[in-house]
Amino acid sequence: MKLNLTTGIIPSLNVSAGLLGFFFVKSWTKFLEKTGWLKVPFTRQENTVIQTCVVASSGISFSGGFGSYLFGMSEVVAQQTGFNNAQNVKNPQIGWMIGFLFVVSFIGLLSAVPLRKIMIIDFKLTYPSGTATAHLINSFHTPDGAKLAKKQVRTLGKFFTFSFLWGFFQWFYTSGNGCGFSSFPTFGLQAYNNSFYFDFSSTYVGVGMICPHIINVSVLLGSIISWGIMWPLIGAKAGNWYPAGLAPGSLNGLQGYKVFISIAMILGDGLYNFMKVLSRTIIGISQEIRDKRKAVIPVVDGDLPEKTFPSYDDEQRTKLFLKDQIPIWFALGGYVTIAIISTITVPKFFPSFIWYYILVIYIVAPILAFCNAYGCGLTDWSLASTYGKLAIFTIGAWAASSGGGVLAGLAACGVMMNIVSTASDLSQDFKSGYLTLASPRSMFISQVIGTAMGCVISPCVFWIFYKAFPDLGIAGSQYPAPYATVFRSMAMLGIEGFSALPSHCLELCFGFFVAAIIINAIKDIVGKMWAQYIPVPMAMAIPFYIGSYFTVDMCVGSLILFVWQKVNKAKADAFGPAVASGLICGDGIWTLPSSILALAKVTPPICMKFLSSADNIRVDNFLS
Amino acid sequence: MKLNLTTGIIPSLNVSAGLLGFFFVKSWTKFLEKTGWLKVPFTRQENTVIQTCVVASSGISFSGGFGSYLFGMSEVVAQQTGFNNAQNVKNPQIGWMIGFLFVVSFIGLLSAVPLRKIMIIDFKLTYPSGTATAHLINSFHTPDGAKLAKKQVRTLGKFFTFSFLWGFFQWFYTSGNGCGFSSFPTFGLQAYNNSFYFDFSSTYVGVGMICPHIINVSVLLGSIISWGIMWPLIGAKAGNWYPAGLAPGSLNGLQGYKVFISIAMILGDGLYNFMKVLSRTIIGISQEIRDKRKAVIPVVDGDLPEKTFPSYDDEQRTKLFLKDQIPIWFALGGYVTIAIISTITVPKFFPSFIWYYILVIYIVAPILAFCNAYGCGLTDWSLASTYGKLAIFTIGAWAASSGGGVLAGLAACGVMMNIVSTASDLSQDFKSGYLTLASPRSMFISQVIGTAMGCVISPCVFWIFYKAFPDLGIAGSQYPAPYATVFRSMAMLGIEGFSALPSHCLELCFGFFVAAIIINAIKDIVGKMWAQYIPVPMAMAIPFYIGSYFTVDMCVGSLILFVWQKVNKAKADAFGPAVASGLICGDGIWTLPSSILALAKVTPPICMKFLSSADNIRVDNFLS
Repeated sequence: MKLNLTTGIIPSLNVSAGLLGFFFVKSWTKFLEKTGWLKVPFTRQENTVIQTCVVASSGISFSGGFGSYLFGMSEVVAQQTGFNNAQNVKNPQIGWMIGFLFVVSFIGLLSAVPLRKIMIIDFKLTYPSGTATAHLINSFHTPDGAKLAKKQVRTLGKFFTFSFLWGFFQWFYTSGNGCGFSSFPTFGLQAYNNSFYFDFSSTYVGVGMICPHIINVSVLLGSIISWGIMWPLIGAKAGNWYPAGLAPGSLNGLQGYKVFISIAMILGDGLYNFMKVLSRTIIGISQEIRDKRKAVIPVVDGDLPEKTFPSYDDEQRTKLFLKDQIPIWFALGGYVTIAIISTITVPKFFPSFIWYYILVIYIVAPILAFCNAYGCGLTDWSLASTYGKLAIFTIGAWAASSGGGVLAGLAACGVMMNIVSTASDLSQDFKSGYLTLASPRSMFISQVIGTAMGCVISPCVFWIFYKAFPDLGIAGSQYPAPYATVFRSMAMLGIEGFSALPSHCLELCFGFFVAAIIINAIKDIVGKMWAQYIPVPMAMAIPFYIGSYFTVDMCVGSLILFVWQKVNKAKADAFGPAVASGLICGDGIWTLPSSILALAKVTPPICMKFLSSADNIRVDNFLS
Repeated sequence: MKLNLTTGIIPSLNVSAGLLGFFFVKSWTKFLEKTGWLKVPFTRQENTVIQTCVVASSGISFSGGFGSYLFGMSEVVAQQTGFNNAQNVKNPQIGWMIGFLFVVSFIGLLSAVPLRKIMIIDFKLTYPSGTATAHLINSFHTPDGAKLAKKQVRTLGKFFTFSFLWGFFQWFYTSGNGCGFSSFPTFGLQAYNNSFYFDFSSTYVGVGMICPHIINVSVLLGSIISWGIMWPLIGAKAGNWYPAGLAPGSLNGLQGYKVFISIAMILGDGLYNFMKVLSRTIIGISQEIRDKRKAVIPVVDGDLPEKTFPSYDDEQRTKLFLKDQIPIWFALGGYVTIAIISTITVPKFFPSFIWYYILVIYIVAPILAFCNAYGCGLTDWSLASTYGKLAIFTIGAWAASSGGGVLAGLAACGVMMNIVSTASDLSQDFKSGYLTLASPRSMFISQVIGTAMGCVISPCVFWIFYKAFPDLGIAGSQYPAPYATVFRSMAMLGIEGFSALPSHCLELCFGFFVAAIIINAIKDIVGKMWAQYIPVPMAMAIPFYIGSYFTVDMCVGSLILFVWQKVNKAKADAFGPAVASGLICGDGIWTLPSSILALAKVTPPICMKFLSSADNIRVDNFLS
């Protein structure tokens, strides 16, 4: 949730979830064994089921849209973007958020069930993340693996504690705005004003350690292009390209360039990848049909084809996988039932989101869910948010005439994203289950439980943030929730078209849209050797709107990992993710006490302020 | 010099000097060997000679009194203490400082020469520091030792660089008073006002790593007693015990308690150790006389007696040691000559320091030099500054009637300290030379060269500080030079007696004086097992006047070393001193560019300021 509301960059925390899940349950079962209440050992199948539940539960904090579509409906974001009227604004309320999530989150699970056998047994898709999780869990259940896991957990615990205490320490110096370590002008005041500084956030140092180096370089490059070059230049055009003296958040001024250029780049990247994954999906399926009966798997670059004759392991896996079936009538019946319920209830939450929009989504969604699950199996890339954006534009434009297009678009995004992302997530989990011989039925039930938990927990966590930090969602604050603005702006773009953009913005947007496509194309053409040195446009676009400080953090994390790998590659690879997760989680958990302090109106006692030499003389005179 | 001018705590840097000396000369000779110009290897004798020269040269920065008696003469210190009149003030000038050092520094060398054979061959004194240096140098000249030394140098270099860059980084945020990391209220503003905070100085973290744990605990305890308890309590008596509203530096107010109580404790400790070492010296010598011809050495607690029959090694050492004699007529003649020169010239520098005072000092000094060299050989504890204080009181009181007593006392301290400290230093060096088979004549010449270098280099370095930092010597500033105030206050005490003290100060002083003696006595009585847990009064007295911040730094250093020793004792012992020296030297060398920047009137661009929550609101309103 913290990542959602700060920059929206969310690295995969599956490995640490697996690690901690294993550790806690192992400790618990050991304790039970000693008391004599437990006679059976803790198996990897149980581990997989637990992992599935945890990931499903935490996944809702992303697909629930608290940092994107859901919060984009609020008045705070509307004030900064536009369409700030009763028809297009819906402030967060814990009640409707939980209700909405319950009606839209489960339908994705049911749509994934029929895909299961096709994706994993027939198509033999790789699902890299699911496979990695399965290997991780398998390794835990070997003696060496358990020992290593114990060490990793200890490392994670150390850095968790450090990061938590560091967050606590920082708190004391943040008495006012622009106070504390998060406003430290590490590279001088000039750079600080252009948002280049190291903000001492252990979260983003950890994120930098988990993300591949090229992602970190990409965000830095993006921030240099935008905050280092473009924004100062465009800022100098105030009064020329756009009226001077606008409110700093106005989309008619500099802010508009920031938001729309980053949207253009994100859409360009999304479109390219959508086309790529779609074409691969079509090629893959047509090949499947042509070569039916022969167990050939599509060859994706870098993924070597598996043996064509199933091994003993594979036979066992397939047998088990097919034994514990979920009946197809259950899946279909459930899908229809929930679709009917949600078609009736969702328009109650959003009056402008008329029932037939939802019906259309529920008819189209299974196809898109299939595409996404297939694409994800091939490339590990879930395009859920791209499908969500598609829904924003189409439903938004459709509902425009009614006047409530923005709200309808954002709600449609929510419905779509939930179905599509759950379908791919569950397929990943089924792959993990397949490789660890876990029963698919248990996996399904576990995911249902996890989703239900997430539907309650995530809104509650968001609610704490929302109540504790009154400037949540405001650009430049501690929790800007950048994607809320971006998603809402997209909905507005869908309704108003390009007429809303300030001058020359369309040309710039077009340039970056095309650039994103070209960079992606080059990345695919030059081959893996060179592709790793070409930046990722999606990552480049993120700092455009938010600022550069977190890119500095991420590069620091990347650098630490790089040096560590040079010094001791084996150790860095074994413990790097544990260190990073510790840093991320410790800082994240600190926000809980910190928000309680904020709710209790406890002000930190000290302000660590950074003044220019001249200001300092003035202040010293004033204070004396 | 930096240590002198900040807190006056100077740990032994002999090990790092030895390490670097070995490393640089070894690199140089290797280079020369490759070019073919050098045919003979670098020997441990040469290494010892170089080490002696370096230590003699750097020792002048301490015995030259730039942080104590010499700077205590200046107007800056006089303004804060008293006797601020022409007769009792002499501002630093590079000319007279170099001249003064040249006439007083060499005489100590000559007085040590005749003691040499008695101390090392006849009495077989241990000289722990000299022995340790010799073992270090011997170890360098074995293949394993050279390899380890190389690693240690690399570690030292790393931490040197880190510490230098950290100092550089800190500089940017120190645009005004109370700005920057050195004013960081780590434990809150309340604690900061009582001088409890971590000031991020890598120097004192390093010092804490070199000093034994009990010293670090002692300074912390002292700071808690003084700044945590006593000063707030006495501060509340303003207007009652002493007039309220005095200038903050006035010795009639709280400052008087700080200075005089710490003097009392230092004197109590000094007196106890003086008596202890003196009694041991007397016992030792009388034993020597009684057991003449039998090669028995005095047994000091913890030091096991060596074998009574000299080993082959010892025979070789003795032979070599006695071969390269320095003629006794040379030493005596030199002593008399320099005494005459200095008797004539020194009164020219200090008119109130009449020639017969100096003559008296030169007559008494050899005896005290003998005592100090002997005591140091037994206990490793040089009492030079205690003898210096003795001179302050006696000569100060004697010259009181002339009106220039303060200046005369401080000058006498300088003459005395130089002789006495050089005698013990040179004896330590002779012991090192004895154990490494270095020629005593080379050692002597090397020390003469080193002393001459020190007499020029140290005043120049001090001069840079003096010119670059205009608040040098002012209490509470970056460079308070605490012992300058303490030494000058002692001289005043010698002249005025106790009448100068504010009310109840004498009782408190007496209490701490006695306490220092009692604590020392207990430390000696309870035996080594328990003595290591009893604090050192001398160390406790240091923060009384200066403040607590550096004690926090030192305890951090101590803690780091402690944890490191728990994790890996062997590595911590091998590399701890290298890390600490790197930290100290890096920060120390940074003061060179920093003072050049100050001389060039370059102001740092940013002020990192710490405001209370209430002040911050006022400042924010003021700035907007």
